[in-house]
Amino acid sequence: MQTAMKFNQCVQPQAPENSDNKVWKWHIQDPASQRLTWNKPPKSVLVIKKIQDASLLQPFKELCVFLTEKSIIVYVERKVLADPAIQADESFAAIIQKFCTFREDLDDISNRVDFIICLGGDGTLLYASSLFQKSVPPVMAFHLGSLGFLTPFNFDTYQSQVTQIIEGNAAIILRSRLRVVKESREKKARVDEKGIIMTNGDSEGSRKAMQYQVLNEVVVDRGPSSYLSNVDLFLDGHLITTVQGDGVIVSTPTGSTAYAVAAGASMIHPNVPAIMITPICPHSLSFRPIVVPAGVELKIMLSRDSRNTAWVSFDGRKRQEICHGDNITITTSCFPIPSICFRDPVNDWFESLAQCLHWNVRKKQNYLCSKEDVF
Amino acid sequence: MQTAMKFNQCVQPQAPENSDNKVWKWHIQDPASQRLTWNKPPKSVLVIKKIQDASLLQPFKELCVFLTEKSIIVYVERKVLADPAIQADESFAAIIQKFCTFREDLDDISNRVDFIICLGGDGTLLYASSLFQKSVPPVMAFHLGSLGFLTPFNFDTYQSQVTQIIEGNAAIILRSRLRVVKESREKKARVDEKGIIMTNGDSEGSRKAMQYQVLNEVVVDRGPSSYLSNVDLFLDGHLITTVQGDGVIVSTPTGSTAYAVAAGASMIHPNVPAIMITPICPHSLSFRPIVVPAGVELKIMLSRDSRNTAWVSFDGRKRQEICHGDNITITTSCFPIPSICFRDPVNDWFESLAQCLHWNVRKKQNYLCSKEDVF
Amino acid sequence: MQTAMKFNQCVQPQAPENSDNKVWKWHIQDPASQRLTWNKPPKSVLVIKKIQDASLLQPFKELCVFLTEKSIIVYVERKVLADPAIQADESFAAIIQKFCTFREDLDDISNRVDFIICLGGDGTLLYASSLFQKSVPPVMAFHLGSLGFLTPFNFDTYQSQVTQIIEGNAAIILRSRLRVVKESREKKARVDEKGIIMTNGDSEGSRKAMQYQVLNEVVVDRGPSSYLSNVDLFLDGHLITTVQGDGVIVSTPTGSTAYAVAAGASMIHPNVPAIMITPICPHSLSFRPIVVPAGVELKIMLSRDSRNTAWVSFDGRKRQEICHGDNITITTSCFPIPSICFRDPVNDWFESLAQCLHWNVRKKQNYLCSKEDVF
Amino acid sequence: MQTAMKFNQCVQPQAPENSDNKVWKWHIQDPASQRLTWNKPPKSVLVIKKIQDASLLQPFKELCVFLTEKSIIVYVERKVLADPAIQADESFAAIIQKFCTFREDLDDISNRVDFIICLGGDGTLLYASSLFQKSVPPVMAFHLGSLGFLTPFNFDTYQSQVTQIIEGNAAIILRSRLRVVKESREKKARVDEKGIIMTNGDSEGSRKAMQYQVLNEVVVDRGPSSYLSNVDLFLDGHLITTVQGDGVIVSTPTGSTAYAVAAGASMIHPNVPAIMITPICPHSLSFRPIVVPAGVELKIMLSRDSRNTAWVSFDGRKRQEICHGDNITITTSCFPIPSICFRDPVNDWFESLAQCLHWNVRKKQNYLCSKEDVF
Repeated sequence: MQTAMKFNQCVQPQAPENSDNKVWKWHIQDPASQRLTWNKPPKSVLVIKKIQDASLLQPFKELCVFLTEKSIIVYVERKVLADPAIQADESFAAIIQKFCTFREDLDDISNRVDFIICLGGDGTLLYASSLFQKSVPPVMAFHLGSLGFLTPFNFDTYQSQVTQIIEGNAAIILRSRLRVVKESREKKARVDEKGIIMTNGDSEGSRKAMQYQVLNEVVVDRGPSSYLSNVDLFLDGHLITTVQGDGVIVSTPTGSTAYAVAAGASMIHPNVPAIMITPICPHSLSFRPIVVPAGVELKIMLSRDSRNTAWVSFDGRKRQEICHGDNITITTSCFPIPSICFRDPVNDWFESLAQCLHWNVRKKQNYLCSKEDVF
Repeated sequence: MQTAMKFNQCVQPQAPENSDNKVWKWHIQDPASQRLTWNKPPKSVLVIKKIQDASLLQPFKELCVFLTEKSIIVYVERKVLADPAIQADESFAAIIQKFCTFREDLDDISNRVDFIICLGGDGTLLYASSLFQKSVPPVMAFHLGSLGFLTPFNFDTYQSQVTQIIEGNAAIILRSRLRVVKESREKKARVDEKGIIMTNGDSEGSRKAMQYQVLNEVVVDRGPSSYLSNVDLFLDGHLITTVQGDGVIVSTPTGSTAYAVAAGASMIHPNVPAIMITPICPHSLSFRPIVVPAGVELKIMLSRDSRNTAWVSFDGRKRQEICHGDNITITTSCFPIPSICFRDPVNDWFESLAQCLHWNVRKKQNYLCSKEDVF
Repeated sequence: MQTAMKFNQCVQPQAPENSDNKVWKWHIQDPASQRLTWNKPPKSVLVIKKIQDASLLQPFKELCVFLTEKSIIVYVERKVLADPAIQADESFAAIIQKFCTFREDLDDISNRVDFIICLGGDGTLLYASSLFQKSVPPVMAFHLGSLGFLTPFNFDTYQSQVTQIIEGNAAIILRSRLRVVKESREKKARVDEKGIIMTNGDSEGSRKAMQYQVLNEVVVDRGPSSYLSNVDLFLDGHLITTVQGDGVIVSTPTGSTAYAVAAGASMIHPNVPAIMITPICPHSLSFRPIVVPAGVELKIMLSRDSRNTAWVSFDGRKRQEICHGDNITITTSCFPIPSICFRDPVNDWFESLAQCLHWNVRKKQNYLCSKEDVF
Repeated sequence: MQTAMKFNQCVQPQAPENSDNKVWKWHIQDPASQRLTWNKPPKSVLVIKKIQDASLLQPFKELCVFLTEKSIIVYVERKVLADPAIQADESFAAIIQKFCTFREDLDDISNRVDFIICLGGDGTLLYASSLFQKSVPPVMAFHLGSLGFLTPFNFDTYQSQVTQIIEGNAAIILRSRLRVVKESREKKARVDEKGIIMTNGDSEGSRKAMQYQVLNEVVVDRGPSSYLSNVDLFLDGHLITTVQGDGVIVSTPTGSTAYAVAAGASMIHPNVPAIMITPICPHSLSFRPIVVPAGVELKIMLSRDSRNTAWVSFDGRKRQEICHGDNITITTSCFPIPSICFRDPVNDWFESLAQCLHWNVRKKQNYLCSKEDVF
């Protein structure tokens, strides 16, 4: 099952060169040149399907039949098969028996899957991301309806498309993820010598740390409160600013076209090694979003004088409260997602900007005439 | 005069690693770690001074005396010394004699200068950039009044600061530049065999190409016309969009805090290997700025159906018309500017955001109370 | 206690005139010309003080002494006097006895107060607004620290300032409010003939309507959910758009500088008879805020296919859920707040833009130099 | 020819009422209720046609035949008939003879036209506006291709539509205009008593004033210069801010959806009595657009220390330089344009937002899925 997978070299933009005659040069690589290659043919695939969507059953079945006929081992999460529609479908029974199943949070499949196929929307890729906290196999994502940012493949021609991937003929984009650690004080009640129950103070509370890999963004917001949270933002240990407003989004370039763009961010191509910081409805008119290099370490804490708590979520999931003393540390993850391109990283991205965000799509003549002389 | 200069390694963010067990990793470098080191002590410095600014004369004189006392050869552009105030200053006469002078566009000093000192505002650095179309020596830039984006050093303590640089003790940031080629058709009249005068057609016009290195941005705009130019924007050969509006800015991360930010761009740290594309007053509400990887090639041309010409400028200089058939090609330059940091790339940048753009600087309590319960 | 209060005529902008020779004219009134005049000298004042702010106690005491010495009857909310610091202050005891007290939501003072004095921040004026669901007496608002949008008076010279108001010498601005009606289905459990407990269906649930007067804004948002609410927006009975995103703000011009400005709105002078509609982090890049005339009726409902509920709040208070079938109706209120100006409506507004939002406040020279030639 | 035209009353928003019991009320009128009525049937129409657009010839001819058959006198600008295509069309010859013609800037038709019909784009309405510096007859505007902001009528059913207008059955919207006066010093050379030629100084230069009525906007910008103009903005005589950047747009609500929206303004419904001030690429991040009441007087001048001149244009026309000492005074005009609605002011506006700006038009599902759980 251990298929060696190899990507072409992907040395990134800045590689200065220094010679005696002081000629500075950068070797800048074509961002569209990364390609998938296999050391051995892939043998196993994880199929991720949005549940509770009847329209996906038929494509799912077709795909699985196609894969098993190619002697590819299909992994499916157990609850996918719990769908009554699947259980009731007799024609499906034979296929199911060949599946390998697993349970989220219980079974580790990280070393057993050669690649991943997603059916059904950007959410499936976010979910796939959450399953792999370390290395992620290449992902091929199909949209069934309209194009998504993360789902470039149209299902109509899935057979030829999947075949090409298996043959190792595909461009790939490495989508960076953020490694987020939330460290919080354990709220352990304690009975002191006078018998009074106390909650922990700074010195005594043990600390708990949780780690997440996010593909789109970490969001810190005011949660259900209508009042403002003040949160401090640190970069490499320095306080760089305090966020007053509805919250702040720390996103990958991939996430720049998700929540961040709604909050006013510029859109960043996923091949740019960067982290985007976007305030949500900031009080200050001058609080424009900023883009910092992928290498930095960010930390978010409640400001000392903040009268309210804040809330954090990871790719829209695992929403939880941030209390005084908790902190969120964010760095670029060492485990990006190798996402298989439909055409290539450049064309796919601009296609999704146009389709998903209508980026600069407009009828040409309208405004034009309003500034033109008639005579 | 040939001093070897060496910077510490600056391998950039993404360097994936691939082993048999499919563990993906990126080695992501701390963007604040680049430092200046000298192979041999620097022997020569180019001093750039804003002209026609009387307040700079005294600092200029002090600096030059200081440098010559340290046996550093001072290069100065000839026209700087043409300033009557300098000519009239007898105490200056002795120093001047030791200067090496040169003339812009005539004398090549690119291999004779070990580092550069700028006095007087961001414009001095843009000017320094224009002098070096290939490799650029490290630049140390002093502001005399308020902090600029490109001039982090305060002149008050210039002696210790310059000494530290000479000793090779400084953080450095490599500011990427854009290599811009403007290719236009030579409008050469021609007399054909029948004696008829013809202006050039596509096939016969010879082509002229001009090359520029820009530190901030290339701007294509409508110029003096109040009518709209339509320009086509290509990325790696593909038409990605047509700009309708007042124009478009293609900027470096350094330039993102100059004109681009005024046109609505997010601010990008200079260590991010990227190019920013920002429309100026676009007709389309959805034409948000985008950030693409440093490795791409952009091309700008007038749209075939554009009824007006457009104008292009390079760091605000060399403004010229773009006609049908002309094209502007833009890539990340191989010759960045090594800009010496006052503290480090991170702190310097956030300091300049606060000082120059008032980024998220605001009194805390004002808006706060407007959303708060009184009772 | 019934003091007749009279404002100068305030006929608003458009008053077209039509004569036989078809000359169109508008009589447009100077928005700064409205002034407060009293038919009889004012006899009673309501003093609103932010509670739990020790710094306000001394000014509060001084003001009350000053007013009672002028034989003005002082109304104070009962809970203000419950402050232990006031109770403990013996020198205050004599003054307190002369106060008229009332309880929020229980005692109606709407016809007993000639004017209102607020101490302590924009929130005090929002609170004052909430106390008067119909006609509002003129309000004079002091800031104790930094200027607020709604609190133009500095307390330092309160004696002369209050005297001027009592003498009827003051410019006034009528701040429009929004009348908001939230109509919801009563969730009345019901036992049917088979003994099964049912919650109400469409036909059986009685409807409950609550009315609010808001000075800043009505906010409909996603509340504690991280998922999106889709809400439909109707204008005069027509569906004009569906809001996808974090929510929508319907604000007065006064509220345009509060939450709306944080969400990207333009700032509207309070004398403009308009309603502003501002989306919060909309999914669509083209969903720019819009400004509609004061006369329209807006209605907000959950979209039929919205899978989540939404939440509504009124000037940041009374936060509550919106369920399917509920609707929020918003019109310009017939009861604006006559807010007393420090100087006049124009100067006060621009002063608050500069002080509270740093509107276009910036050092002149910084950016300038980055686009300038040095030589 | 003198047809009396009458509009229904259009008293605007704020009309406060004040009684002894201090109940404040505003009578706020439905902005959609203004309707066109004729005292006598209209007898004459001015037809405005975009020239040099062959596609308009046939509709133009059809319309003119239709009008003359209804015994309506048709006014046409003389140069429209100079079109060779019209001259060559024999079938047109008979119709032309019945036309009344006039010459722009020479013949005054302001009292001879009962209403106006525009064919061909928003520009035709801007042109119509420029012809009537005082009172404007009602305007009916047809788009021939796609809907414009100012051209709501589709030509397909022109016969029934025009008939309805003639019968006085139409909703109308009064689009406010700006009255702009540019006052400049006459640069008149003068020979003094000693025979020396002098150009004017402050005291001696006579002043020249030009007046314009604009429907969309006055633009002050940097013109062909790439350097910055600093212009001072006064409101009712007070300096409110200095514009540093590419320029400033002062627009009507009608103009808010033209150039202003491209520069970042919110969109204002034409029934709101207001003036919008929008900076173009301002240097200050906090320089958000503002909306002020229709009644104010704005003045724009070059800042005393501005090193460059600026340029001004009026609805995109009559572009001219602004020098030191010149000033531009802007107030809401007493002569709005009565623009005939296709449906009504509210529906027409939202229809044009959707058609011309794609306002909040987007496929529903795309972004949605990116924030949703799959499982």
